[in-house]
Amino acid sequence: MNKAEVITIGDEILYGQITDTNTQYLGEKLGELGIKIIRKSSVGDTKDAILQIIKEGFERADLLILTGGLGPTKDDITKATIAEFFNVGFKTDYATLEQVKDFFEKRNRPLLEINKLQAEIPSNAIVLPNKLGTAPGMWIEHNGKVLISLPGVPYEMKHIMETSGLEKIKVFFKPKTIIHKMIHTIGLGESFLAEKIKDWEENLPSQLKLAYLPSLGIVKLRLTAQGDEDRQELLNLLHQYVETLVPLIERYIFGYDEDGNFSAQLGKILKSKNLTIATAESCTGGYIGHMLTLVPGSSQYYKGSIIAYHNNAKVDLLNVNAKDIEQHGAVSEQVAKQMAKNVRLKLGTEIGIATTGIAGPDGGSVEKPVGTVWVAYSDVYQTTAYRMLYTSNRENNIKLSSLYALNLVRMKLLGLE
Amino acid sequence: MNKAEVITIGDEILYGQITDTNTQYLGEKLGELGIKIIRKSSVGDTKDAILQIIKEGFERADLLILTGGLGPTKDDITKATIAEFFNVGFKTDYATLEQVKDFFEKRNRPLLEINKLQAEIPSNAIVLPNKLGTAPGMWIEHNGKVLISLPGVPYEMKHIMETSGLEKIKVFFKPKTIIHKMIHTIGLGESFLAEKIKDWEENLPSQLKLAYLPSLGIVKLRLTAQGDEDRQELLNLLHQYVETLVPLIERYIFGYDEDGNFSAQLGKILKSKNLTIATAESCTGGYIGHMLTLVPGSSQYYKGSIIAYHNNAKVDLLNVNAKDIEQHGAVSEQVAKQMAKNVRLKLGTEIGIATTGIAGPDGGSVEKPVGTVWVAYSDVYQTTAYRMLYTSNRENNIKLSSLYALNLVRMKLLGLE
Repeated sequence: MNKAEVITIGDEILYGQITDTNTQYLGEKLGELGIKIIRKSSVGDTKDAILQIIKEGFERADLLILTGGLGPTKDDITKATIAEFFNVGFKTDYATLEQVKDFFEKRNRPLLEINKLQAEIPSNAIVLPNKLGTAPGMWIEHNGKVLISLPGVPYEMKHIMETSGLEKIKVFFKPKTIIHKMIHTIGLGESFLAEKIKDWEENLPSQLKLAYLPSLGIVKLRLTAQGDEDRQELLNLLHQYVETLVPLIERYIFGYDEDGNFSAQLGKILKSKNLTIATAESCTGGYIGHMLTLVPGSSQYYKGSIIAYHNNAKVDLLNVNAKDIEQHGAVSEQVAKQMAKNVRLKLGTEIGIATTGIAGPDGGSVEKPVGTVWVAYSDVYQTTAYRMLYTSNRENNIKLSSLYALNLVRMKLLGLE
Repeated sequence: MNKAEVITIGDEILYGQITDTNTQYLGEKLGELGIKIIRKSSVGDTKDAILQIIKEGFERADLLILTGGLGPTKDDITKATIAEFFNVGFKTDYATLEQVKDFFEKRNRPLLEINKLQAEIPSNAIVLPNKLGTAPGMWIEHNGKVLISLPGVPYEMKHIMETSGLEKIKVFFKPKTIIHKMIHTIGLGESFLAEKIKDWEENLPSQLKLAYLPSLGIVKLRLTAQGDEDRQELLNLLHQYVETLVPLIERYIFGYDEDGNFSAQLGKILKSKNLTIATAESCTGGYIGHMLTLVPGSSQYYKGSIIAYHNNAKVDLLNVNAKDIEQHGAVSEQVAKQMAKNVRLKLGTEIGIATTGIAGPDGGSVEKPVGTVWVAYSDVYQTTAYRMLYTSNRENNIKLSSLYALNLVRMKLLGLE
């Protein structure tokens, strides 16, 4: 199995002023190609430190991925240091120069000399194009090993890997047959999922491996088949075990393989049923709307939202009964239900969902502690509400209640709730 | 200047399943002591990898801080590996044994044999007591250098450093001073900022270093003072250069040091002026509401939003003139202005902001390409709109226009626009 090291460059990562999200992404993607990350390191923007870590990295690993330090300002020295390491000069990459010019032209901004330098690359490098920024990725082969240098900005790094980097890695390292099946789940924590599929997991044959990839509210299961068998044989084995896994956790599965975006999957259900949706948000403050509208084409089923953060807005914009707010509080079943129903009527959609809660970190009481959230669902047949209790972490509460509300729609539409 | 390396141990960190927050804390605290972190590394729970990284670390640095791998289960091997590295046996630390017994007694949980092993430490180690858990910190001196081993749980790690670790480091290394100043900017890209402060930057004395820390729409500048001078002298030098820097880029600065959350800073301005705000979002789909409501206490100035994604919602909920939509399109100055003004009136706030645009990746035309966004601001004196042109990346367009809209409020309220 080929080994990789990820090296992040930049004082800001070394000092923890920026949180590194790149390594998680790279670990996942390289894992899919059968390449294992054995070490991850961060060094500052210091020539000697970068030179040393490249040298060491090549002693241990077959693939080094460097991120960061490719900006146009003079504190970014990765490119010059790479050239020094390989003892090569620079060449102009004209495709990159065009891309940089175009980048500034489109934005109606002047092209500075400093920006043109982005097209200068070490003479032994091949460009991995970056359409989202001005720093190109670079691919350098060295004694049968590879160094890849990428910008540190996560969306640029991902874009480069997905449009060229991953494919080149695959072609270069020709890892032995490895096939993945991704199963995307929502609504059950990692350890509870593990409990449900314990017997199944214990009986996996040696060619199959299961990984849990949890993120907030979502757990991806990655089942990997790897072995000396031919591809079709491995594929058959994989499918056989997927077929026995699915019935154990079916209600939590919202997609397979590349269908891992929850909002997009919900969008498909809404489109297939020709239904439209509107949301009334209090504690989630617009995050449900944001999740829905991140999906291209969501205007087909999403009409809009009323974010009624202040109680007056709940009354004025959503016709919530002021007496109910007074009597039961804004965070209550009664208010949540009226919000969901009335936003549906106001916006003329088939479905309405609503959230009202105490996101925290302050504002709780004994009866309604921080993290209490009411989530309501309304269609022409029913209006129901559910009480959740999350933690004191504001951001997590917002994100978890938003996911809960959207998953509630999925469950209702599929007859699972 | 003394050098330190931080080594995090654990498969879950290597694969990015846990976000490392310890390094940020350690970087900050060691930085205050004038000790510089030159590298941070992560390895899995593998003996050879840990042995190798300790060996390498001692070659480069004066202080190694290891976190993680001190739990009682058998996948945690840090302690045994440290003993092996120094070629020493184990001794019982009786104070730790008492502490472990006490820990379980207080929690009414049985004390297992496996837990008693927490009091066994390498014979060359001194305990750094852990009152919040069962794994003690350890301090080991070696050829004039130091290895510290700490549990990976952030609050235990911090507790140990604050009650004994930092003091011991200070006494042992007697380090010189380092001071940071963070300056948070919005509204100007990294290279344009660099252009504006070029002369200033070129004249920095050798004790001062500047770093650019860009993220989407935001650039942080970090100015670091470091030298043999005493703390007050360095502080004076730092302040002197901050004072000449600020006038060059003042309109872009929204905060200093820990005040780096843009929405929170805008919230402070709104509160100080006793103003309230509402938003009417189309292409941003709720993201502005989300940014505002991520800030605890935002209900003081944020009343709510109307997300009018569908054109009907713009007419029905925001009283946008249907004829204007027909004549100028939903993405137009006329519509943006009506949205901003009407949401302000509907929600009874002093300020209204609105967005309408083509987030992409599809849906553009020659006249209005993908990435075209109108952002409008309205208060009792004025209603104005601005046309932006972003890229074809939907998520970035949403986030950049949201930041633009909120920054527009900051600029208007501070008389900068």
